[in-house]
Amino acid sequence: MMTIGKYSLNEYRRLIEWFHGSPSPGMLVGGIMVDAAIKRLNTTRLYDAICETSSCLPDAIQLLTPCTIGNGWLHMADLGRFALALYEKDSGRGIRVFLDPEKTEEWPEVNIWHLKLRPKKEQSLEKLTDQILKAGIKLLGFQNVEVLPAFLARRAKGEIAVCPACGEAYPKNHGPVCRGCAHASPYVQKKIDMRSRKITGHRISRSEKTSLMNENQG
Amino acid sequence: MMTIGKYSLNEYRRLIEWFHGSPSPGMLVGGIMVDAAIKRLNTTRLYDAICETSSCLPDAIQLLTPCTIGNGWLHMADLGRFALALYEKDSGRGIRVFLDPEKTEEWPEVNIWHLKLRPKKEQSLEKLTDQILKAGIKLLGFQNVEVLPAFLARRAKGEIAVCPACGEAYPKNHGPVCRGCAHASPYVQKKIDMRSRKITGHRISRSEKTSLMNENQG
Repeated sequence: MMTIGKYSLNEYRRLIEWFHGSPSPGMLVGGIMVDAAIKRLNTTRLYDAICETSSCLPDAIQLLTPCTIGNGWLHMADLGRFALALYEKDSGRGIRVFLDPEKTEEWPEVNIWHLKLRPKKEQSLEKLTDQILKAGIKLLGFQNVEVLPAFLARRAKGEIAVCPACGEAYPKNHGPVCRGCAHASPYVQKKIDMRSRKITGHRISRSEKTSLMNENQG
Repeated sequence: MMTIGKYSLNEYRRLIEWFHGSPSPGMLVGGIMVDAAIKRLNTTRLYDAICETSSCLPDAIQLLTPCTIGNGWLHMADLGRFALALYEKDSGRGIRVFLDPEKTEEWPEVNIWHLKLRPKKEQSLEKLTDQILKAGIKLLGFQNVEVLPAFLARRAKGEIAVCPACGEAYPKNHGPVCRGCAHASPYVQKKIDMRSRKITGHRISRSEKTSLMNENQG
């Protein structure tokens, strides 16, 4: 019986549905890739993961390995390649697995999906799934890799400060104010939001408040 | 009985252990934050998430909402603040929840953890857990937010090309070669790896191969 990581194929499919939300071909081939990477890494040491795409594959890694975004063991490298690497935390040595166009070429439905040769609507999920399961690791390329030392360095948060602008905690080494207040806020700047005590992430000081009230009255 | 998302506290704790790997306080308070955000957003529409820290919180979001890294509904904004936003995909309107230092101040163990006033080893996980559960949403601040239109735009991958350097598929709009070959590889450049047909992610051309062989012989 086919297994993917510690799971049967059906168990893995249920995990995909629960976590990822849809029965995506990327999650299926991704599961096969992660499973193959674990087997080839074949280590008893702790390992981290690098994911080279943000499509599907990170979820396969998170479901099948101890590495997640939130525990810091999964590192995203947005290179746009459908590939991952698992590597030992201490040595940086590991295995990279990628979807190989020279190999997917022999599986027409996989090739069409992988190189996006036809719009998604015109692809058959059923045929694609069949070919992925039939081909399995025949779709994959493997490389031994060594992760750059700069990438291995543990990024400690260091001391925590309270941002004088928004009043929230942030890593002091980010600068005199937090990044959200400095430049990188993903939110529309609002003039004033009476339901909160903040303007645009800036805590309203008593004097600001008074001047705002005066403006509104004026 | 306390619930976190669709789960009882104990069920959520088991999920944390399985997915995140350790009973972290960040996952516990993170769960309370996500639960509160879902309730306040209170929408029947599809929503996305922004997470402002890479510590723990992304995993709480992934376990309790439909948003994950791999399905593209969870967006990371590395601002170093322990905060998240859930917002409607179409309107960009949503709710931001943050851990508020003015409020954590009243809960000594939470405050020590949040502002890192004592090394982790000298903190009591048991007391901290008790205070988090007792305080619950009293630790949190809420803001209505509107996500910037640029952030809402769906990033389509567009056409796929095969990289002339490494031979792998990548989004054509990244440039003439893939990002891994252009500049952003996280791996140590190897002279030659005989187990694969690649040098440093560069497919070995016939002429390169000949010259390498000659070098080795010389």
